[in-house]
Amino acid sequence: MPHIELPEGLPGIVGPMVAYPDTEKHLNGLADTLLRGPSSLAPGEREMIAAYVSAGNQCNFCTQLHASTARHLLGTASDMVDSVLSKGAQAPVSEKLQALLEIAGKVRLDGRLVTVEDVARARKAGADDKAIHDTVLIAAAFSMYTRYVDGLATWAPQEPDAYDEMGALIAENGYARTIRG
Amino acid sequence: MPHIELPEGLPGIVGPMVAYPDTEKHLNGLADTLLRGPSSLAPGEREMIAAYVSAGNQCNFCTQLHASTARHLLGTASDMVDSVLSKGAQAPVSEKLQALLEIAGKVRLDGRLVTVEDVARARKAGADDKAIHDTVLIAAAFSMYTRYVDGLATWAPQEPDAYDEMGALIAENGYARTIRG
Repeated sequence: MPHIELPEGLPGIVGPMVAYPDTEKHLNGLADTLLRGPSSLAPGEREMIAAYVSAGNQCNFCTQLHASTARHLLGTASDMVDSVLSKGAQAPVSEKLQALLEIAGKVRLDGRLVTVEDVARARKAGADDKAIHDTVLIAAAFSMYTRYVDGLATWAPQEPDAYDEMGALIAENGYARTIRG
Repeated sequence: MPHIELPEGLPGIVGPMVAYPDTEKHLNGLADTLLRGPSSLAPGEREMIAAYVSAGNQCNFCTQLHASTARHLLGTASDMVDSVLSKGAQAPVSEKLQALLEIAGKVRLDGRLVTVEDVARARKAGADDKAIHDTVLIAAAFSMYTRYVDGLATWAPQEPDAYDEMGALIAENGYARTIRG
């Protein structure tokens, strides 16, 4: 049972977002801008970084939801998602994405762990300032979303189908429009 | 030196906020709503929770800035801030604030650490759902802000006077207006 009264049947972060619309506006605005706005990283790549950070944070709701959204966005390349979830920066993805996953994994634990060498490796593989900025902020933001979801003990569905449906909606409509209906 | 190009001389989170205004809008919108919007917790109490979480995260910029802002908001009760920074949930503050600091400290580490007993204790001491919600989200949000500041290796001033000035401005004007000038 959640630690505070939340609308019943709404999964994960959706419950507190619907119950507390003043903060929902900014939480979803950040997600839409960071995961869907202009960037040198494709939306599918950004969702994979979000899913990878959430897996490290052991947040089932966040991991399943963003993995599903990434799969819907990546289409035929969606096999990458499971590989990134299980192997992280060692997954057989581009060198650029490997280097960014390494940075994201460190930011998840503590931003101070990111080294000059980590950033140089990402740049050498083609990451620009915006890609590095977005990777750091995605990892930081999912350190927040996870703690919000878990710190309130929100309910999360177990069935993969539920996440597949939500992921399809978010891939099509983005965050604010999906949550606000 | 920061990991990406940022405007020189802007402290901590201000550099990436000015360089990346699309996300700044939501990051500051969240701070203004969460720390200054309607709540059963006073703005000074919320800033103390933010400073306490930042101290746990060992983020000098975030700790100094929000401690200074809390002092300016609390006026004659500003001695509480140093006490909360050094003693956390054992500081001689109200039972309600002690219980909320305990919850915030747990969310900082991992939201799943918050127990039914922690929440019951906060309620017994007078915390309502909104206070518990805001405490969890402040601790979660400062897990993000810190990682953004540290993951980009932003520059932070060492002199306490710099934080005193910024804290005074933020206490008076809030976040978005202070950053955007």
